[in-house]
Amino acid sequence: MMASLLDSLVSKMPSLSTSDHASVVSLNLFVALLCACIVLGHLLEENRWMNESITALLIGLATGFVILLISNGKSSRLLVFSEDLFFIYLLPPIIFNAGFQVKKKQFFRNIVTIMLFGAIGTVISCTVITLGVMHLFKKLDIGTFDLGDYLAIGTIFAATDSVCTLQVLNQDETPLLYSLVFGAGVVNDATSVVLFNAIQSFDLTHLNHEAAFQLLGNFFYLFLLSTLLGVLTGLISAYIIKKLYFARHSTDREVALMMLMAYLSYMVAELCDLSGILTVFFCGIVMSHYTWHNVTESSRITTKHTFATLSFLAETFIFLYVGMDALDIDKWRSVSDSPGTSVAVSSILLGLLMLGRAAFVFPLSFLSNLAKTNESEKIDFKMQVVIWWSGLIRGAVSMALAYNKFTRAGQTDVRGNAIMITSTITICLFSTVVFGMLTKPLIRFLLPHQRVTTSFLSDGNTPKSFRIPLIDQDSFMDFAGNHNVHRPDSIRGFLTRPTRTVHYYWRHFDDSFMRPVFGGRGFVPFVPGSPPDIDPPELSKV
Amino acid sequence: MMASLLDSLVSKMPSLSTSDHASVVSLNLFVALLCACIVLGHLLEENRWMNESITALLIGLATGFVILLISNGKSSRLLVFSEDLFFIYLLPPIIFNAGFQVKKKQFFRNIVTIMLFGAIGTVISCTVITLGVMHLFKKLDIGTFDLGDYLAIGTIFAATDSVCTLQVLNQDETPLLYSLVFGAGVVNDATSVVLFNAIQSFDLTHLNHEAAFQLLGNFFYLFLLSTLLGVLTGLISAYIIKKLYFARHSTDREVALMMLMAYLSYMVAELCDLSGILTVFFCGIVMSHYTWHNVTESSRITTKHTFATLSFLAETFIFLYVGMDALDIDKWRSVSDSPGTSVAVSSILLGLLMLGRAAFVFPLSFLSNLAKTNESEKIDFKMQVVIWWSGLIRGAVSMALAYNKFTRAGQTDVRGNAIMITSTITICLFSTVVFGMLTKPLIRFLLPHQRVTTSFLSDGNTPKSFRIPLIDQDSFMDFAGNHNVHRPDSIRGFLTRPTRTVHYYWRHFDDSFMRPVFGGRGFVPFVPGSPPDIDPPELSKV
Repeated sequence: MMASLLDSLVSKMPSLSTSDHASVVSLNLFVALLCACIVLGHLLEENRWMNESITALLIGLATGFVILLISNGKSSRLLVFSEDLFFIYLLPPIIFNAGFQVKKKQFFRNIVTIMLFGAIGTVISCTVITLGVMHLFKKLDIGTFDLGDYLAIGTIFAATDSVCTLQVLNQDETPLLYSLVFGAGVVNDATSVVLFNAIQSFDLTHLNHEAAFQLLGNFFYLFLLSTLLGVLTGLISAYIIKKLYFARHSTDREVALMMLMAYLSYMVAELCDLSGILTVFFCGIVMSHYTWHNVTESSRITTKHTFATLSFLAETFIFLYVGMDALDIDKWRSVSDSPGTSVAVSSILLGLLMLGRAAFVFPLSFLSNLAKTNESEKIDFKMQVVIWWSGLIRGAVSMALAYNKFTRAGQTDVRGNAIMITSTITICLFSTVVFGMLTKPLIRFLLPHQRVTTSFLSDGNTPKSFRIPLIDQDSFMDFAGNHNVHRPDSIRGFLTRPTRTVHYYWRHFDDSFMRPVFGGRGFVPFVPGSPPDIDPPELSKV
Repeated sequence: MMASLLDSLVSKMPSLSTSDHASVVSLNLFVALLCACIVLGHLLEENRWMNESITALLIGLATGFVILLISNGKSSRLLVFSEDLFFIYLLPPIIFNAGFQVKKKQFFRNIVTIMLFGAIGTVISCTVITLGVMHLFKKLDIGTFDLGDYLAIGTIFAATDSVCTLQVLNQDETPLLYSLVFGAGVVNDATSVVLFNAIQSFDLTHLNHEAAFQLLGNFFYLFLLSTLLGVLTGLISAYIIKKLYFARHSTDREVALMMLMAYLSYMVAELCDLSGILTVFFCGIVMSHYTWHNVTESSRITTKHTFATLSFLAETFIFLYVGMDALDIDKWRSVSDSPGTSVAVSSILLGLLMLGRAAFVFPLSFLSNLAKTNESEKIDFKMQVVIWWSGLIRGAVSMALAYNKFTRAGQTDVRGNAIMITSTITICLFSTVVFGMLTKPLIRFLLPHQRVTTSFLSDGNTPKSFRIPLIDQDSFMDFAGNHNVHRPDSIRGFLTRPTRTVHYYWRHFDDSFMRPVFGGRGFVPFVPGSPPDIDPPELSKV
């Protein structure tokens, strides 16, 4: 199939006259490549070094190379990497699914630490990279950048991509670590995009204390409003489905409504210049807590797997795309006369992002540990290393931000921009492939009890894919089913274990007010034929 | 939500500078409107006249009107109706789902009649319309058309839209009628698109017998090759999933692979200038017969509902869109000086399409009845009227073909083209709304036993949406589980009941060769935790 497709591509390439035929060809190739990624990714799952992101990236690189040969060095791409494609179509399903499948209890229990790492950490990382770049770039001949450009570079390389690490970590064995890496990853994505936009729209020539506070205020305002919008959309969807579909369930409409409302929350946030990432993430959390319990059993299974599938496809697409885009010859042409500079810039940036991440992971972990009395909740040094490592990979968010900043029309300084683009690609490829391949061995070395799972895994009876639904199901139960939270004894309890106490009051509020209105586990009238408490057959297996 | 969205639309409309902001706004509005269609469609489900298509169309018209007011008569659209959007993104899920959910046994038992109605009938209908238009248009002042244009008009108005009728017919009560209307609808779609393309690419100036036979040969070649490609893709998907995922099932990957392979079949067919509609339809049939049985229980529920949801969304989107597009002021401007001509053209076309359909439904039904010995398999007169009526509605396929033909660049005769476009819109709107509203009452009048279902329906316990999965499940079992087909007694049996006998030999071949290779019901080794025979809880209800 692949071969015949490529044949037809080659034979038809010179005759591509209308744009629609070209787009059909490239769509075809993309779909076929996605299939190849799924099959190969599955076959390579047990490999010590590979994971699906790396597989997709390498397939993308190989395809780019083949196209480069076929077109005689003219082009390596089938589609132009567009921010719109990324931010409008690919990112929302990934982030929504993240919110939908997150272990809510773990997430909210660690929310303070997650916010520390995700928000404050990103700001620290961005500052370190910006200062380092300002200092070190002056010695290199790469054109002039102003403060706004340096800050943009800081935010671009502060945006981590923790997908690789999450594919290796086990949510059941290291729940604390998983929720920290996961939660901080999502908050980091949101923070860097918000920061980037704030810097882009901000007048940096008159930087003073007042303006800085305004920036900070703006930042928190965006954060809060985006979260609220997401929660609101989720609640509206729960309410609509609860009111409209009582005893007249229609799986297709329920699924369609959930998908559309989730997407709407993202798009409305983007329209209002809020952070769509945060909005859709919290929309996902609220939907899994209320809406998901108001629909039929079929809708539950369908939504859970559809969202996961869409997220999986979007991720694979992004890696495939970044790989394919990396070989685009135009970008490399203008830096080919001075390969040394490009390598130097990439190395400097790579060093700075490792430093920038170290600059907040270890101090903030220390701070977080100080606040905790329970030994099991503390973040030990090995975990700190894993958290530090998990944030070294740069991916599609960095690429999209870099393209936004350095390929916009009206940018005259071509050389500096070209170097930044190629450096971003170099860092994304290098970190995804090299750091990504080292992740599995490193985690096995640092957290050796993982090894048990791995051997358990490799006998083929409980592959990752079987575990994930189990974990999800578990997470849905976890947050909802645990009614026996102890009442804190005194005000002292509130001070020493604030999140636990908040959790107790939240439960109380949830049970007595929220659930009766918006539905949720145990608060939806029994509909014959859609027993709300039954496990899907597959999930009850392990 | 809707109101605030419209507010923001109004306030931001003058400042739309970048195209991406505009596209975000229109995407938002579309998603919000789709939500509104789902909710309103659900609320109006029990209404005597309405169905979801009409609801979506009316919402689209209303929105177009509001936008027209807001923009001071400048525009009524948010997106330009593009054939690509329709043929690349919206049509494939609808047709694939049709194949995936069809009652295969009924479909194949009636395949001869379906092909008669769908293929031969469409050709007859097209001929009648073409001849009528050639004769009648000469008296009207609407510019000059050549033979190719007349033939194109014939195919455009031979393309039916049976979605409305199918929403009213009940697959359980009138299985023969349902499968005829449904099957003929799909074959009709494919035939008109294939015919249209054949006419477009054919040199009509030297029309002789040889050329006509070539056209016919080309037509059958396309038909056969498209079907084969669809079957092949379906079998490949079954084989890959059976081989790769044995005992290592991964729901997300299985679902992704099925979606991608289905889409790939359509796109490859389009790339090779075959009929993507036929390909994806047969791919759907093969996938539901083999692939669907090779995946986990979760994957089965997920795929079934995801495909149905996507199809439902695409249908709603199309009707919404056609409604919105209808008010586009530019198209009406050039015909506004002679409203009489436009009305005359629309009336002539409407009359011709009713005549054209009558010209094949009644004679072909007579022929079909002659070949049948069993009284229950004959098509009585009332059913013939329903079949005739069900094909009077013109929808998105006609619109897309008309746009392709009459809005292409290089067409100089603006007046004639403008009239054809507005007439197509008029006919689509009129037939969908008026004929659509009359469909429910007409079917109740002609087939009064339907009334039982309707009252059964309106008590709210078994809405349509509950019935559909049941029917589907039934259909999946129907074709697969019925092993006790009697061996035909003699060669006489083959002559009198050819399809039954073919079915017997097919079953034999399927059980002894196909299923062991490609999987399918009862031929997939038992995987613990994914019992292949369990009904999803919801489905076992009624």
